[in-house]
Amino acid sequence: MAFNNVRQVGIEWGDCDPAGIVFYPRYFAIFDASTSALFERALGMSIYRMFKTFSTAGFPLVRTRARFVRPTRYGDEVTVESVITFGRTSFEVAHHITRGGLTCVECSETRVWVVIDPADPGRYRAQPVPQAVREKFHG
Amino acid sequence: MAFNNVRQVGIEWGDCDPAGIVFYPRYFAIFDASTSALFERALGMSIYRMFKTFSTAGFPLVRTRARFVRPTRYGDEVTVESVITFGRTSFEVAHHITRGGLTCVECSETRVWVVIDPADPGRYRAQPVPQAVREKFHG
Amino acid sequence: MAFNNVRQVGIEWGDCDPAGIVFYPRYFAIFDASTSALFERALGMSIYRMFKTFSTAGFPLVRTRARFVRPTRYGDEVTVESVITFGRTSFEVAHHITRGGLTCVECSETRVWVVIDPADPGRYRAQPVPQAVREKFHG
Amino acid sequence: MAFNNVRQVGIEWGDCDPAGIVFYPRYFAIFDASTSALFERALGMSIYRMFKTFSTAGFPLVRTRARFVRPTRYGDEVTVESVITFGRTSFEVAHHITRGGLTCVECSETRVWVVIDPADPGRYRAQPVPQAVREKFHG
Repeated sequence: MAFNNVRQVGIEWGDCDPAGIVFYPRYFAIFDASTSALFERALGMSIYRMFKTFSTAGFPLVRTRARFVRPTRYGDEVTVESVITFGRTSFEVAHHITRGGLTCVECSETRVWVVIDPADPGRYRAQPVPQAVREKFHG
Repeated sequence: MAFNNVRQVGIEWGDCDPAGIVFYPRYFAIFDASTSALFERALGMSIYRMFKTFSTAGFPLVRTRARFVRPTRYGDEVTVESVITFGRTSFEVAHHITRGGLTCVECSETRVWVVIDPADPGRYRAQPVPQAVREKFHG
Repeated sequence: MAFNNVRQVGIEWGDCDPAGIVFYPRYFAIFDASTSALFERALGMSIYRMFKTFSTAGFPLVRTRARFVRPTRYGDEVTVESVITFGRTSFEVAHHITRGGLTCVECSETRVWVVIDPADPGRYRAQPVPQAVREKFHG
Repeated sequence: MAFNNVRQVGIEWGDCDPAGIVFYPRYFAIFDASTSALFERALGMSIYRMFKTFSTAGFPLVRTRARFVRPTRYGDEVTVESVITFGRTSFEVAHHITRGGLTCVECSETRVWVVIDPADPGRYRAQPVPQAVREKFHG
């Protein structure tokens, strides 16, 4: 089952390049914050508290693919819809940026849930997403 | 036929996140600059002069996909190898980031060559990559 | 007379550095957006429309000074209060970032109002801030 | 006595805003990396190793002031000269960006040398810059 979150983002002057459109790496910063927002809404706690509550070291990105359909510009208010689908140790988040109902950017991320490796505190280890986390996304 | 460029990039403090590794949107800024560096080397001129010489409005990104294999950290000196392959109005650039010979990130971009639309100076139009540009990438 | 605007900003993961605190150049992006927000609220129009309505080319930064008192971190919700004071062709904006009522960063910017130089469209020229703009900042 | 370092920086497309000039927060990222480069050259080691060798937690910024004299643009190769002057627990770094010998930006930073507070590992404490560090900047 999928769970989604929607948020509005205002495109800032400093997000844009000399062509007057968003410098595309900035979209990935928007997507990263959107994945966090999705978790914060589902869990009802900040990501910071999530780290402690679930002893996680976060959910690093393994793979991303994006398609740029329409440019967005300074002053645009865009809508970011994010939909999560869980696998076992990984999950997919599909982000969809629209402006006035028209698709601007589509992105799909694969992330893994990691914990600090007890055998080597400098390393992370993938682990199944805790059941207590998944449950919050159903509902 | 493919043409490649290799450059060294130093990972800066400000490229990294609280986990101590590169904040992944920064990789896309590195890739964007690497594509520019590829054109600058092949054409023997700055991108800025390329815009004027070939009456282009640039080569916006249409699609990108990346795979994050190993993290990189502040102080790392990484190698970025970029290989271009031309289609008709589009081209692919494959970027490969390594550190000490080990793959860290792989990315593949699809870009289109655009000109300002004579019918509407506020819009861009895809156009075949000029023969004079392609030739520079051969031998 | 001074005019102020207050906005809330959430500190994102990607704003922070390996020390876990905001990478300070990011504060200046927040200040830049805060100055824009101040104008948008006073004028009741987007900066983009302001450019057209008042034939301005914007208000580039001439000088800035900032003092970093307390760090802010991922997940912090900070308050940015911005106060503008007009000179003739220039104006000052003082920004004050607080968290829970405690000062984190103080900044003061000097900006000039510019128009495109009619004698050389590639250049900007400082000009008095239009009376119609100043008036909007008085109650 | 002052010690200086000079480095060349290429202005990238993604550093620039819709006015075609460097988005000024980017200058501060350049200055931050320039201060690191200054220490790396003086100490003959990476900042990362400096952290360990001198048990420091870095040198956070306390105050900065900058003056923007001439814009720089995509494709510009600029020179950044950085000069350090030590106080007791703090030091000043003056950065000077020029293009073709002409001043573009002047900046002056005040930073403090900090260590992790033994009484509270989550906090930093200012401390005199170690003599072994200062000595590297002489002679």
